[in-house]
Amino acid sequence: MKEQNISIVGSGLVGSLLAIYMAKRGHNVHVFDRRPDIRKMKVVQGKSINLAMSDRGWKGLEGAGIRKEIEKVALPMYGRLMHGMDSSLTYQPYGKEGQAIYSVSRGLLNQTLLNCASELPNVSFHFNHKCADVQLEHKKVVFEDNGEEKEYAYDRLLGTDGAFSAVRNRMMRLDRFNYSQSYLSHGYKELEIPANADGSHQMRKDCLHIWPRGEFMMIALPNPDGSFTCTLFMAFEGAVSFEKIKNPDDVHAFFNQYFPDAKALMPELIDDYFNHPTSSLVMVKCLPWNVGGDVCLLGDAAHAIVPFYGQGMNCGFEDCWEMNKILDETHEDWDMAFDQFSRERKPNGDAVLELALRNYIEMRDKTADPQFLLQKKIENWFSTQHPDKWLPLYSQVTFSDIPYHQALQNGLRQDEIMKEVLAIPDIEEVWNTPLVENKILSLL
Amino acid sequence: MKEQNISIVGSGLVGSLLAIYMAKRGHNVHVFDRRPDIRKMKVVQGKSINLAMSDRGWKGLEGAGIRKEIEKVALPMYGRLMHGMDSSLTYQPYGKEGQAIYSVSRGLLNQTLLNCASELPNVSFHFNHKCADVQLEHKKVVFEDNGEEKEYAYDRLLGTDGAFSAVRNRMMRLDRFNYSQSYLSHGYKELEIPANADGSHQMRKDCLHIWPRGEFMMIALPNPDGSFTCTLFMAFEGAVSFEKIKNPDDVHAFFNQYFPDAKALMPELIDDYFNHPTSSLVMVKCLPWNVGGDVCLLGDAAHAIVPFYGQGMNCGFEDCWEMNKILDETHEDWDMAFDQFSRERKPNGDAVLELALRNYIEMRDKTADPQFLLQKKIENWFSTQHPDKWLPLYSQVTFSDIPYHQALQNGLRQDEIMKEVLAIPDIEEVWNTPLVENKILSLL
Repeated sequence: MKEQNISIVGSGLVGSLLAIYMAKRGHNVHVFDRRPDIRKMKVVQGKSINLAMSDRGWKGLEGAGIRKEIEKVALPMYGRLMHGMDSSLTYQPYGKEGQAIYSVSRGLLNQTLLNCASELPNVSFHFNHKCADVQLEHKKVVFEDNGEEKEYAYDRLLGTDGAFSAVRNRMMRLDRFNYSQSYLSHGYKELEIPANADGSHQMRKDCLHIWPRGEFMMIALPNPDGSFTCTLFMAFEGAVSFEKIKNPDDVHAFFNQYFPDAKALMPELIDDYFNHPTSSLVMVKCLPWNVGGDVCLLGDAAHAIVPFYGQGMNCGFEDCWEMNKILDETHEDWDMAFDQFSRERKPNGDAVLELALRNYIEMRDKTADPQFLLQKKIENWFSTQHPDKWLPLYSQVTFSDIPYHQALQNGLRQDEIMKEVLAIPDIEEVWNTPLVENKILSLL
Repeated sequence: MKEQNISIVGSGLVGSLLAIYMAKRGHNVHVFDRRPDIRKMKVVQGKSINLAMSDRGWKGLEGAGIRKEIEKVALPMYGRLMHGMDSSLTYQPYGKEGQAIYSVSRGLLNQTLLNCASELPNVSFHFNHKCADVQLEHKKVVFEDNGEEKEYAYDRLLGTDGAFSAVRNRMMRLDRFNYSQSYLSHGYKELEIPANADGSHQMRKDCLHIWPRGEFMMIALPNPDGSFTCTLFMAFEGAVSFEKIKNPDDVHAFFNQYFPDAKALMPELIDDYFNHPTSSLVMVKCLPWNVGGDVCLLGDAAHAIVPFYGQGMNCGFEDCWEMNKILDETHEDWDMAFDQFSRERKPNGDAVLELALRNYIEMRDKTADPQFLLQKKIENWFSTQHPDKWLPLYSQVTFSDIPYHQALQNGLRQDEIMKEVLAIPDIEEVWNTPLVENKILSLL
C-alpha cells in the first residue's frame, strides 16, 4: 500500500492516538495544533479535568499497542456512590465483580500519548499552528504561525480538532453539508476536594461520587494525588441556577442545603467557585464526516457530545480503532474507507449523544429514586443468572464494544420489559424469585 | 430618539426594505453587499427566479410606504392549476373570490427596492464589500473591498445577508449560540416555457401551474414577458432522481412520461436541462437572533426555509415590519427591542419552516389526491358559511397575518376535525349539506 502524506489537525487525545495508528501503518504523519506543546506548559494547578476510561477506550489504546503505558496512570472506580441530602450513602456497582471504569487525568493522558507518538520516526509535530483554511481543491492546509501563513500539502487530511473544529468549519461551506451545534441549558463548574495532609483521599477513592439532586447534581472523581475533581452541573438560569448564586453567602447557603457533606471537605470552596468559570456544554452533529477520500473528521470534530456517560474520549478512541480496521478491510482504498467510516460510524455518533443526554437525567435524578435502584438490582441479578440473555445497558456501553446504536436499541427494549417487571405486585419482596425470572424470560 | 449609525449587511430583498424602514425612523443607514449593484448588471437571460408575494409581503411594503411601486410589476395568480399525467387540468382557488398571490421577479423587485432606498438622503450603499469579520467588542464590521480591508463602526448592525450569512457566521463562535443547517435530499432545476411569438402566454397566466407526481413535481410561474419560469423539484439520488438523468435521451424519456403537456411547450428543454445547475435546498435555524442591542439577524440569515409555501420573502418582509413595530413599542430601547424580536419571532420562524416542509408534500403528492381536493372543497364551503369560525390554513398563512406558529397550531386542529368529516359515509355526496355543517360545528 502506497505511503501517504497524512496531515492531522489537532494533537489532543484523539489526534495523538490517531497519529500512532497512521504512523504504524507506514505513513508519513504531520500533526498540527494551534496550542503550544502541552508537555512544555506548566500544569494549571488542580485543573486536570478527569476522564473515565472504559472498554472502548482501552480497545483503542490496545490497537495502537500502548495500553500498558496508560494503565500505569489510571485509577479504577468500581461503582457509583450516591450521597443523599442527609449525607447517607448508597452504593451501586457499575458491572460485575472486578469491572471498573478508570479515572485518568486528561493532561497526563495527552502527554503520554504525545510521548508515544514522538517516539515514532515518521511522526512530526507542529505546535502553535492555527488552522486558517483548507484548500480542498489543491489538497493544502493553511496555518497561521506567529502571523505568518504556511501551506502544507497533504494526501489525506484528518480533522481531530474537537468540538470547534476548523477543518469542519471549512467543510460547512460545502454544498449539502448538514451541521448543528446546540447547547444544553445547563452548564458546569469545577471545584476541588483536596487530599488529606498525608496525601490520602478524604473519601473512598474506588468509586465515582454523585450528589443527585433532581434538576442538578455534583460528581467527584479521584486523582492519584489524593484530591478529587468535583463538577457541579446545573441550569444557567431558573429557580435553582448559576445566575442565582451571586456572592459567598449564596454559595454557603446553597452548599449547606444541598451538599453539606461535600462542603465540609472543601476549604477553598468560595475561592474556587468565583475563580473558576461557568462553562457551557455543546453538542455537535454533522454529515457527511468526509470529503471523498481526501478529508475525514474523527472524535469531537465529528460528534461532540455531553460528558454524562464518560464516553466522549472512549468514542473518539474507538473511532481511531474503527478507521484502522476499515483501512485494513479496504486495503487503503481511501475513498471507500472514508465513505464507509462516515456511513457506518455516524449512527453510533448519534446514539452515544442520545445515551449521554439520557444519562444526565439518570445521574442527577434517577439515582436517588428507589424504584430505579431496584430496577438496576433486578437487572444485575437476572444478568448474573443469564449472562447470555441480558447485559445491562450501562455494561453494553461501558464494558463491551457493541455498537452504540445497537446498545441504545437494546436498552430501550430492556426498559419496556422492566416496566412490566416493576409492575409485579410486591416486587420489592419477590424481586429475586423464579416468578420474576420467568416473567423476564417470557418477555425476552 | 437618538440618531443611530446603522450598518446593514446584505442589500437583497430584506436588506433593502429594512434600509427604508430604518432611514424613515431618522437613522443614518449604510448598506453593504458583497456583490456589485444589481441595477448595473446585465440581467441573466430568462433566469429571473419568481416569487409569490402575499399579504405579509404587502404589509411589509406598505409599512415602508412603497406598496404601490411594487404592485405595478406583480401578476396575480388566483389559484393552483394541477396538470395530470394524462394532461387533464384541475383548478383549485387559493382563497376567496378576488384573493390572489402575486408573481414578481426577484431581480425587478430588488431593483425597485434599491431605487426606493437610494432616494432617501440618509441611506448610503457600499457594493463589492464582502463582510470579512465583525468585531463585536469594538462594534466594527470589517469588509474586503478589492483585497483591501476596511472597517466601519456601527451603533447597530443588522444582518440580512441570507442563508449563508457572514454576520451569523461570526455569531456562531459565541458561547451558547445554537445553530443548524440541513439540506433536503431533494434539489431543483430551473427550466423555461417561452412566450408565444406575439408575447402572449402559452398557458393560463392567472394561476400557478403544478405537475404533482408524488415524490417529485414541477411548477410554473408566469412572467410579464409572456414566459413561464418552471422549476423541477426532485430527489438528488434514488429511483427517480437527478442522478438518473444523464443524457438527452433520458430527459426526453422522463418528460414524455411525466410532463408531456409541458414538454410540448419547451423547445429549449434539452439545453436548459444541461446548462442550468441542479441546486440544493438548505434550511437554517439559529438562536438567539441577536447579540444584545448591538446586532440582530432578519430574513433568511435568521431562518432560511424551503420555498414550497412561497413564504421566504413574505416572512422576511414581515420581519422588517415587526422590527419596526417593536422599535416603536420600546421607544428604541435597542437591547429590549432586539431581545424581544428574537424571542417573539423565533417560534414563527420555526413554524414557517415546518409549514413549508409540509407544503412540499402537499404540492407534490396530495394535490393529485381526490380526497385532499374534497377536503379543501369542504373547508372552503364551510369557511364561506362561517368565515368567523374557519379560515383554511392556506389562507391563514397567505391572506392573513396571524402569527405563523398560531396558524400551524390551528391547521393541525383543522386536520383532526377534517379527518372525522371525511369519514362520514358518502361524504362525496353529502359534503355541502347541513349534516356536514353541523358535524363541523360540533367539533369546533
